[in-house]
Amino acid sequence: MGGSDIERLIQALARLPGLGPRSARRAALALLKRRDVLLQPLIEALAAAAANVRSCSECGNLDTADPCAVCSDAKRDGGLLCVVEDVADLWALERSGLFRGRYHVLGGTLSALDGVGPEDLRIGGLVRRVGAGTTREVILALSATVEGQTTAHYIADRLKGLAIIVSGLGHGVPVGGELNYLDDGTLDAALKARRPL
Amino acid sequence: MGGSDIERLIQALARLPGLGPRSARRAALALLKRRDVLLQPLIEALAAAAANVRSCSECGNLDTADPCAVCSDAKRDGGLLCVVEDVADLWALERSGLFRGRYHVLGGTLSALDGVGPEDLRIGGLVRRVGAGTTREVILALSATVEGQTTAHYIADRLKGLAIIVSGLGHGVPVGGELNYLDDGTLDAALKARRPL
Repeated sequence: MGGSDIERLIQALARLPGLGPRSARRAALALLKRRDVLLQPLIEALAAAAANVRSCSECGNLDTADPCAVCSDAKRDGGLLCVVEDVADLWALERSGLFRGRYHVLGGTLSALDGVGPEDLRIGGLVRRVGAGTTREVILALSATVEGQTTAHYIADRLKGLAIIVSGLGHGVPVGGELNYLDDGTLDAALKARRPL
Repeated sequence: MGGSDIERLIQALARLPGLGPRSARRAALALLKRRDVLLQPLIEALAAAAANVRSCSECGNLDTADPCAVCSDAKRDGGLLCVVEDVADLWALERSGLFRGRYHVLGGTLSALDGVGPEDLRIGGLVRRVGAGTTREVILALSATVEGQTTAHYIADRLKGLAIIVSGLGHGVPVGGELNYLDDGTLDAALKARRPL
């Protein structure tokens, strides 16, 4: 289909999440047809990101600075630490603008099935960070899955004895959610978390 | 969201067809997390494609060689010329393996609305190519849209007087298609193209 360089580009694009072989082919064709607008800027953006973006040694966020913009922002509440699984979760919370504390990115969840143990995640760093001082509360903002909740319980256990509050996210009916589409687990959590109106 | 270089990468990815802001963010994160497997190979593939892929001066196909692999393949029937709108159509036909002649890529369709006239497409080159000699039949494999059929009629007109056959693709029920999902135009075409069993 027109040269090994085209095939190679299609294959490199098809390895990205969300792009199958068909959409990778479409993207490759668009890139080759509009080189000044699409291809050249993408090469430059990739090269700049490869050269400048690093993992924050404090919290695990991705940024061009280390410590990252969140960790070095003096206006944020250093006493509030939000633990998330992934940088994508940190970005989601930042987009919402709802949280003004700091973060700690674990880099995944504990999973016996996938062989992910505590030493594979940034848990030791979290315990050290919390033990070092200023933290008042740790919010475990992990997925409401078996792995996420197992990880939350494990971390809560590791933080026992420190004079801090450890909290988890509230479970219940998502805003805009319709009851008849919810699973039993969510309904159960929503009933248990009922509150007076 | 973590550095202007990350934002720039997300924006460059979001301009690709099939990737919105959300999937571009996901792709950027995957690229940054798996640099050796995803980011570096993509930079190299893009650079190689930018340097080596060109438009075939004969037919308009994209390839690392000019004339392209299809045009220089001596085993193909040089008397059969398939006219397509876009390189993507040529690739689709090549993947099917059904056609063993040569191609001519127009680069679009005539469109008064978008200001695309005959001089904006590779139509002059097609007329010269057919006039030069070996072509027996021109197959106008254009979309069954108003623009595609207008373009087909215009080209058929321009090729009048040359001792060749000009044909178009058959219209009718697509294989696997269900009657109650088809539009009236397709049903009409299918009825007119009915054949004895």
